[in-house]
Amino acid sequence: MATTSTRTGTRPEPAADSHRAAGGAGLVRLRLDVAYDGTDFSGWAAQPGRRTVAGVLLAELNRLFASPSGLVVAGRTDAGVHATGQVCHVEVPAAEWSAIGDSLGRRLARLLPRDLRVTAVVPVPSTFDARFSALWRRYEYRVTDAPWGADPLRARDTLAWPRRLDLNALRTAAAGLVGEHDFAAYCRRKEHATTLRHLARLDWRRDPDGVLVAEVEADAFCQAMVRSLVGGLLPVGDGRRPVPWPASLLGRSQRADEVPVAPAYGLTLVAVGYPAQEDEYAQRAALTRARRVR
Amino acid sequence: MATTSTRTGTRPEPAADSHRAAGGAGLVRLRLDVAYDGTDFSGWAAQPGRRTVAGVLLAELNRLFASPSGLVVAGRTDAGVHATGQVCHVEVPAAEWSAIGDSLGRRLARLLPRDLRVTAVVPVPSTFDARFSALWRRYEYRVTDAPWGADPLRARDTLAWPRRLDLNALRTAAAGLVGEHDFAAYCRRKEHATTLRHLARLDWRRDPDGVLVAEVEADAFCQAMVRSLVGGLLPVGDGRRPVPWPASLLGRSQRADEVPVAPAYGLTLVAVGYPAQEDEYAQRAALTRARRVR
Repeated sequence: MATTSTRTGTRPEPAADSHRAAGGAGLVRLRLDVAYDGTDFSGWAAQPGRRTVAGVLLAELNRLFASPSGLVVAGRTDAGVHATGQVCHVEVPAAEWSAIGDSLGRRLARLLPRDLRVTAVVPVPSTFDARFSALWRRYEYRVTDAPWGADPLRARDTLAWPRRLDLNALRTAAAGLVGEHDFAAYCRRKEHATTLRHLARLDWRRDPDGVLVAEVEADAFCQAMVRSLVGGLLPVGDGRRPVPWPASLLGRSQRADEVPVAPAYGLTLVAVGYPAQEDEYAQRAALTRARRVR
Repeated sequence: MATTSTRTGTRPEPAADSHRAAGGAGLVRLRLDVAYDGTDFSGWAAQPGRRTVAGVLLAELNRLFASPSGLVVAGRTDAGVHATGQVCHVEVPAAEWSAIGDSLGRRLARLLPRDLRVTAVVPVPSTFDARFSALWRRYEYRVTDAPWGADPLRARDTLAWPRRLDLNALRTAAAGLVGEHDFAAYCRRKEHATTLRHLARLDWRRDPDGVLVAEVEADAFCQAMVRSLVGGLLPVGDGRRPVPWPASLLGRSQRADEVPVAPAYGLTLVAVGYPAQEDEYAQRAALTRARRVR
């Protein structure tokens, strides 16, 4: 397989007419659903000299396609963060897609390492944008308060908290953060970027095995926001901060330094939501871009 | 802490009278419930130069007690096999136990590596024998037949099977193995050891995430028996062997070489059962010893 891909952001010209699809576009956009154990990745985004999810995925796509281009992801997860329901899109020459087609999933299963899986591949309209068409992202954060720590088989994605956590205190404090707010207190500073977000869901449950799971959903998140929300709630759960404290920080104009950022390894991106109708992809993307949320 | 323990199988004499408990026995037997990710262990049993569960556990017990002795385990798991509900017992000087007592669990949580946890510590009568008092052992084996493989966060304890598996075929074939049989076909050969076992339960379920889980329970198992049972059933599940085939091998006088041994990493010891009444410990142990099952 050739490896002459361009990833400059512009679409590469197909090398021959045979690469042109019937529709004339010449490229097929593919939606890839992706799962990974973030432990041994330096996050999603490709970086020279680092093992990243995008880097490993592109390396294998380059074995299968002469010129995959424009890999775009729904949630640029930080180093150590996991995913069971990440979504990205990529464009490949239509003729190559016709030749590989249904076997792409199986080929990627063989080529990719065990800590990175492509769980679904489907062609999508070119109006589908994994990042800008997304309606919401949903994360989960796992914490155990068992005095002996985390189940060894889940130690890679479960934070061990050294004090007992009160589920009701966590839930009540979390409820105070739900809704549209300026989350500057919970965002890493970024110039000229809005920190206004609509937090659709922030709740906690205790699973049958005793593990506490935060369920967090929003249209979009600023960097390290979920880990900051969890970091602000845990001291409420163990009684060191009062229940109203996390909500009292809303509306601050900058990062609240007293809010710790919970470790990355407890966090998993579990799902990304898109419009049900294909003709809404472009509309949603235009709206998102206009709001300039990341 | 001193590290002058003896592990010769005989009880060490306490160094001073202060080590003698009021009852005069001088030693307290402790039941430890243990969980581990078997990936980086060469099995349970201590071996020179190898990282084993018993070896790591004893090293830390030796930091806390001058002379822990007689570590005995319910299920001597092979290299790579995991546990969420392993049980062992150990004896420590009564005076040292009185001094450490309730803090032992927390101390072990700090000292032990993340892939090995002691989830409970309780003093038990000296008639309690983790191995011989056990009524049953229960294992689970996880297999995914998703074409893309195992969820990366569960790849350490889930076998990826390359063909679709039929739950009904697996269940029907498994039912034919339940009961008291000579499991020689499914046992590694061992001289002068009975291969008669009572398989109380062998069933399959498909979890909401699509993973197939075999639930296996018996009074005791011979070596690699659970992995051989699973290895015999999977070719039925994917249609390459007929449903009656696994049961047809019962009663053979030696290992059936055509039965593959499923990989260790899919297997987890989830629970060990003991008599409800303390006065039954010794009775059960005598019965087990008489049967000479391992």
